[in-house]
Amino acid sequence: MDNFEKSDIGLIGLAVMGENLALNMESKGFKVSVYNRTAPGEEGVVGRFLEGRGKGKNFIGAFSIKDLVESVSRPRKIMMMVKAGSPVDELIVQLVPYLSPGDVIIDGGNSDFLDTERRVKEVESLGMYFIGTGISGGEIGALYGPSIMPGGSPAAWPLVKDILQAIAAKLDDGTPCCQWIGPGGSGHFVKTVHNGIEYGDMQLISEAYSLLKNLAGLDNETLARVFDEWNKGELDSYLINITADILRYKEGGTYLLDKILDVAGQKGTGKWSAIAAMDENDPLTLITAAVYARMLSALQDERKKASGLYPYVGIQEETTLSTEEFRMALYASKLVSYAQGFSLLRRTSEHYGWKLDYGTIAMIWRKGCIIRSVFLQKITEAYRKQPELENLLFDDFFRSKIQTSLPAWRKSVSEGVMNGIALPAMSAALSYFDGLKTLHSAANLIQAQRDYFGAHMYERVDWERGKFFHTNWTGEGGQTVSGSYNV
Amino acid sequence: MDNFEKSDIGLIGLAVMGENLALNMESKGFKVSVYNRTAPGEEGVVGRFLEGRGKGKNFIGAFSIKDLVESVSRPRKIMMMVKAGSPVDELIVQLVPYLSPGDVIIDGGNSDFLDTERRVKEVESLGMYFIGTGISGGEIGALYGPSIMPGGSPAAWPLVKDILQAIAAKLDDGTPCCQWIGPGGSGHFVKTVHNGIEYGDMQLISEAYSLLKNLAGLDNETLARVFDEWNKGELDSYLINITADILRYKEGGTYLLDKILDVAGQKGTGKWSAIAAMDENDPLTLITAAVYARMLSALQDERKKASGLYPYVGIQEETTLSTEEFRMALYASKLVSYAQGFSLLRRTSEHYGWKLDYGTIAMIWRKGCIIRSVFLQKITEAYRKQPELENLLFDDFFRSKIQTSLPAWRKSVSEGVMNGIALPAMSAALSYFDGLKTLHSAANLIQAQRDYFGAHMYERVDWERGKFFHTNWTGEGGQTVSGSYNV
Repeated sequence: MDNFEKSDIGLIGLAVMGENLALNMESKGFKVSVYNRTAPGEEGVVGRFLEGRGKGKNFIGAFSIKDLVESVSRPRKIMMMVKAGSPVDELIVQLVPYLSPGDVIIDGGNSDFLDTERRVKEVESLGMYFIGTGISGGEIGALYGPSIMPGGSPAAWPLVKDILQAIAAKLDDGTPCCQWIGPGGSGHFVKTVHNGIEYGDMQLISEAYSLLKNLAGLDNETLARVFDEWNKGELDSYLINITADILRYKEGGTYLLDKILDVAGQKGTGKWSAIAAMDENDPLTLITAAVYARMLSALQDERKKASGLYPYVGIQEETTLSTEEFRMALYASKLVSYAQGFSLLRRTSEHYGWKLDYGTIAMIWRKGCIIRSVFLQKITEAYRKQPELENLLFDDFFRSKIQTSLPAWRKSVSEGVMNGIALPAMSAALSYFDGLKTLHSAANLIQAQRDYFGAHMYERVDWERGKFFHTNWTGEGGQTVSGSYNV
Repeated sequence: MDNFEKSDIGLIGLAVMGENLALNMESKGFKVSVYNRTAPGEEGVVGRFLEGRGKGKNFIGAFSIKDLVESVSRPRKIMMMVKAGSPVDELIVQLVPYLSPGDVIIDGGNSDFLDTERRVKEVESLGMYFIGTGISGGEIGALYGPSIMPGGSPAAWPLVKDILQAIAAKLDDGTPCCQWIGPGGSGHFVKTVHNGIEYGDMQLISEAYSLLKNLAGLDNETLARVFDEWNKGELDSYLINITADILRYKEGGTYLLDKILDVAGQKGTGKWSAIAAMDENDPLTLITAAVYARMLSALQDERKKASGLYPYVGIQEETTLSTEEFRMALYASKLVSYAQGFSLLRRTSEHYGWKLDYGTIAMIWRKGCIIRSVFLQKITEAYRKQPELENLLFDDFFRSKIQTSLPAWRKSVSEGVMNGIALPAMSAALSYFDGLKTLHSAANLIQAQRDYFGAHMYERVDWERGKFFHTNWTGEGGQTVSGSYNV
């Protein structure tokens, strides 16, 4: 090793996120060891980085796992920025022989929280610590200050706090957007829900764009101005801001957006929110609709065929709605999306015993990450007032905003419905809201059907909860009830 | 053993489904050994059955696994009707020591298809065969003829075919609603999708009931007549039929349905469809909406609170829609639901190499099972014409029905939206349909955003597919693209 002074942290994986995090750490005064696996015959990634963006800076290049570990001062912090899944497990296996008790492995990738839940136990059983941390902010955030959501071995938090808080985004009062989330896989779970909410926000913005473009007939320049306006009010947020930039971006005189294929990719973390919601029996309808909308966008061949078989008939009536009314539809849907996302956080926290602090989670999302917005402050306030709030829609602020937006929200969705403009997220939000506030729904019929054909039993409005009844609806089939009744 | 003549099949688990299947087999001339675990101190389930519904019939009562296996003629067929999950694995472990090569274990419970996929391999590696079979029809179906969907070890099919086809429901021409589905977990997967479709159908019927009751103001007697009428036409189906029965059912002079609590239970198989759809990137929006609707119905405390905070304001305008128009909304949504369900079958079949025969699957659902209907014949016809049809909505019959129903469908959903009647499944169906037929959607904005903040790249309308571009939208952040781009 050329350099005798050991580094503060080791970082494995120099793709865009890892590279920018390493540069961010170095810029905050930390010495960083970097390592990247290099395929045989390829040019070395580490060498290229040290000769490129890392040139003249306080890095140690390592060319093996052993070199990397040995170059870091104790207790060692080794951060992995690699593809989620088996590569993380493989790296842990490679790292462990060189680590000492009390060293910390940090997984900064988009890992499944259930993997992190397992890895914390596995690594702790070997005497080391494990932190699974969500990091949001994309390329730019990683470089200048992301939102960081660390969870795992609580004893490791004091060891990594200085570095992680130093590189995190800061609120206006200097508070870092990096606070301890909780034990086990909680950090990665919070990131999963963050990503789900991000899917929801992006889908909602695309639906608003679709309404404004297709129903109100606005051109890109006008659209950009509308989003600029929206970004000055209660929708002030990163995603609204970049939408204005994107709408305005020209390439050789034409708008680039119009040249981009309408096939939205995904890396799977939106799906994880939906699957977690299924596991927790939590109706996360908007985020799920957003995930499905991306899948549908990817079925381009089927969409082409369908558009031929079901030709577009055009807008049936000029819209009577103002851009402000469409904004309200977006805003109300967004309120529902966050209410659903935090509901999932609450149910999962209760399931795993994490004791999440929802107000703090909303706070550290306020800068640095993709969903950063002024609106998140309202969520922090709601939970500071009522830490055990069951649903954000019960908070006064949310309630008053929903009430104000409701007529515009209904009319916007209705116009989409009548004119063939797909609004899966806005309409899922509205269905959820209407379902939530319906005291006597039609689910009695479903439960009657289940008892009719499967002897699954039902509860009654004129009895206390928990008492189950079976009716022999047909006079056949006997009184045997289902052996595996589960709500 | 009192009885020296061995039985044709052994059956483990005498809850409602197992008990009725055993009676069904016996009624078709088969001798059946039955066994049920009895908790210490409890009255014996087997004894009670033999003294009760099984009295004087051709059963052998077994009081241990060993007794059961020894009482069945070779090659033995042992059918498990127990709770899905670890009980199935535990039973297999208990059974295997007493079985011989060539014997067949049949799992007739609602097992996760991935468990069945694994168990087929495990049991085959021990020299025995394993069949995982979906069975639908509930209590009555099990007794008189269910729809049966067997998959697993192909060599075991000739061994169990006679019994399973004998107890299955029959089409009018005598064809049994039990045909070989395919290898591995395919039988249980087809049952999973069946159950998902069942969730969708039940939710759609409850939404139609809600529209007719709340918007059209129909009373239970009139509603029952409407469903009777619907049951004579293209909606002719078991679930529509029992809905009329349920609406009409009185208990002491009052309608029972109105006394049933609107909390819908579930046993989890609807969720599995949604999770499988996530795994296959298939937008199964309607079934997922139905699953979430049940979850929301179960949040009764939250619904109570929400109904207080957001009081019901009543119907805004009398509906101008006829019951026929609401029927069309239900029918069109149902067409979408089946199109989505069969799309998931196709994608999963391709993933696992099952080579499913979609026309036959629709055929064996035509009698015996919960979703039985005349409509399924149209699906069989569609796949007989085009076995590789990508989406049922591309079939001529589906297309013409959708086109005819579309105005009524849009108006029904719009009236729900305007009047606060939650229609999560009907509106998910419409959003999907509108999304599918949209040639140029707003997903270009989502992909632009992903490239802006995460360097995830995009494709272009003016280039062939598969060529990816990155734009440095801000002038910052460099040209490094995401290291883990995945569609």
